[in-house]
Amino acid sequence: MDKEEQSVAIKYNLNSSKVEAAARGWLKERGVELPEISTLVYNAQKEYYPQLTVEECEAAVNRVLSKREVHNALLVGIQLDRLAEKGALDSPLQELVENDEKLFGCDEVLALSIVNVYGSIGFTNYGYLDKTKPGILERLNDRHDVACHTFLDDLVGAIAASACSYIAHRQQAHAEQQERGEQPTPVGAVPAD
Amino acid sequence: MDKEEQSVAIKYNLNSSKVEAAARGWLKERGVELPEISTLVYNAQKEYYPQLTVEECEAAVNRVLSKREVHNALLVGIQLDRLAEKGALDSPLQELVENDEKLFGCDEVLALSIVNVYGSIGFTNYGYLDKTKPGILERLNDRHDVACHTFLDDLVGAIAASACSYIAHRQQAHAEQQERGEQPTPVGAVPAD
Amino acid sequence: MDKEEQSVAIKYNLNSSKVEAAARGWLKERGVELPEISTLVYNAQKEYYPQLTVEECEAAVNRVLSKREVHNALLVGIQLDRLAEKGALDSPLQELVENDEKLFGCDEVLALSIVNVYGSIGFTNYGYLDKTKPGILERLNDRHDVACHTFLDDLVGAIAASACSYIAHRQQAHAEQQERGEQPTPVGAVPAD
Amino acid sequence: MDKEEQSVAIKYNLNSSKVEAAARGWLKERGVELPEISTLVYNAQKEYYPQLTVEECEAAVNRVLSKREVHNALLVGIQLDRLAEKGALDSPLQELVENDEKLFGCDEVLALSIVNVYGSIGFTNYGYLDKTKPGILERLNDRHDVACHTFLDDLVGAIAASACSYIAHRQQAHAEQQERGEQPTPVGAVPAD
Repeated sequence: MDKEEQSVAIKYNLNSSKVEAAARGWLKERGVELPEISTLVYNAQKEYYPQLTVEECEAAVNRVLSKREVHNALLVGIQLDRLAEKGALDSPLQELVENDEKLFGCDEVLALSIVNVYGSIGFTNYGYLDKTKPGILERLNDRHDVACHTFLDDLVGAIAASACSYIAHRQQAHAEQQERGEQPTPVGAVPAD
Repeated sequence: MDKEEQSVAIKYNLNSSKVEAAARGWLKERGVELPEISTLVYNAQKEYYPQLTVEECEAAVNRVLSKREVHNALLVGIQLDRLAEKGALDSPLQELVENDEKLFGCDEVLALSIVNVYGSIGFTNYGYLDKTKPGILERLNDRHDVACHTFLDDLVGAIAASACSYIAHRQQAHAEQQERGEQPTPVGAVPAD
Repeated sequence: MDKEEQSVAIKYNLNSSKVEAAARGWLKERGVELPEISTLVYNAQKEYYPQLTVEECEAAVNRVLSKREVHNALLVGIQLDRLAEKGALDSPLQELVENDEKLFGCDEVLALSIVNVYGSIGFTNYGYLDKTKPGILERLNDRHDVACHTFLDDLVGAIAASACSYIAHRQQAHAEQQERGEQPTPVGAVPAD
Repeated sequence: MDKEEQSVAIKYNLNSSKVEAAARGWLKERGVELPEISTLVYNAQKEYYPQLTVEECEAAVNRVLSKREVHNALLVGIQLDRLAEKGALDSPLQELVENDEKLFGCDEVLALSIVNVYGSIGFTNYGYLDKTKPGILERLNDRHDVACHTFLDDLVGAIAASACSYIAHRQQAHAEQQERGEQPTPVGAVPAD
């Protein structure tokens, strides 16, 4: 390691709280509010868990948003959307992202890296949300004349799908705790699974 | 390598045609006919490609069914379904597969290994098909009182989603060939992408 | 839902503790002891974290083994190994598994579903362990004349790789806690990331 | 669709040949020559196939580089490396990419999307190459004082691993063709598997 490298190594230190704050901040700046994601989750899950509350869905979304894998995917995806909006990507990537090219799949690739963290049961929810585009997802998709949300809509769908998986894991734990006569842990207070 | 091993090594030789024939045969034995998968594909894609024919969808399904990754996933999944049907798996795997446990995701894991072969654009189609369960998928899912299709429905959905991806790649190649004044290659005759 | 289905629905209830106990028990029955996995992890990580202890590695392995996604993959993989050993799989799956066919990748597919749970940084460790086969992995691989470990060696490598990822996430959290003057949480006591 | 959108829709048309040319061009501009990737492949595979030639490895690498999934991943990854080099990413993504942060896994995520196209047998080769960093991979990794190759080294490793998978599939087809007394298809002339 020469001097220059050493000085870089000394200066740089991962600050996870700063990364998380940035990921959440960028989401907000791009017009995505947490309650909108929670609503997606609630609508997708209420038929399975009639007693589920919106607050529990919000806690689940918050839990997903505390994961490093999610921060990294959000930063990369939103950065590319922003640069595409300014025309700052090199051709032909600029055109692929700007036009949300159907055969460009890196947005789905990043989204899957989020879904994977809560296990394979989330794939189905992700695909369904991405195809039917309810609520916030439709809004993001519709505004593509003024803003580029090529990555963002997939990432938000993936966060919602992961929160659905989290809830499914937690509801199971909850039911088993009740059966054993234990006090159930509140949703969001502990990791899923 | 001792003698016993050597004799095994000599006796065993992968025969890919036999593996493919088995994978296709097992699918048929479990009640899945190719035209039913082609119909899934056609219904999912006709809105995007109005001139698409059912024959092209069948060619696409056949192309997907020629892939080794697909054979392997089909053999494993269908084997597990069959064994579960006979009660021949060890507990608690028997109960997880027999009851298509919601939090058991190995069926989705195998399905994704199929979808991945045609790239990330298939994730969405897979999830949508798996959630809405049109046509053959509904039938497979409904017969779970008499037969175990825990893996099969996901695998068939994955084959259909992969064929959708294949068609999307081929349609693009086709359009570009026409633009260049070339004779377009028929669907199914060449690999996608 | 007709009567028969209803009675099945009433009888079946996922018992996660039982599933976890089975997954751990099956691992042991197949000759895999936790300290051997911990040693793999320790040897892979000690160069990065000189103060890492074997106990912390064991706590990390235990954390990984508490995940539902891991239980499911272990049950499926070990079940297939066992059945192959008895010659109880249908041909040609029997031959593919029995001979650990190089072009059969369902073992890697299940292994990746484990690695994914701790995020993408584990891919590299998994591939390296799977290729170099240190310690327990070599032993599992060498005994293929008397036992079938086609799935097991990949699954154990994936558990070790996931524990490496868990440690990397925890060490980072630990360093950041110290920097903020907080009491660091012991490894294994909390979820990674 | 309003007028502005319509005009965008008319102007934009995916040109796959242009995308492929760009992906190959960007690779070259970043200092990666195809023979170097072929050498990686040859060194990794010669122990399994003693008659393998460097030309066949080059044909395999070329085949992998003809895949759309690979083009997309290359464009995204190299774009991010370039922007990081210029300090043009927003903080904290700039620092994560610039310093090749160990806990940032989006480079591995994109790499896996390449490996997946040739099936699961490539995971192991990818991980091994990424960890041992032979040849060109070491050079890319070592130059991180003057250039940012956070994504590039993983992508090149993934291309090499995919070419290894392609060769394994083709060698099998070749052996089976010979056994049937058929003329074997040259490597690179047809799709693998």
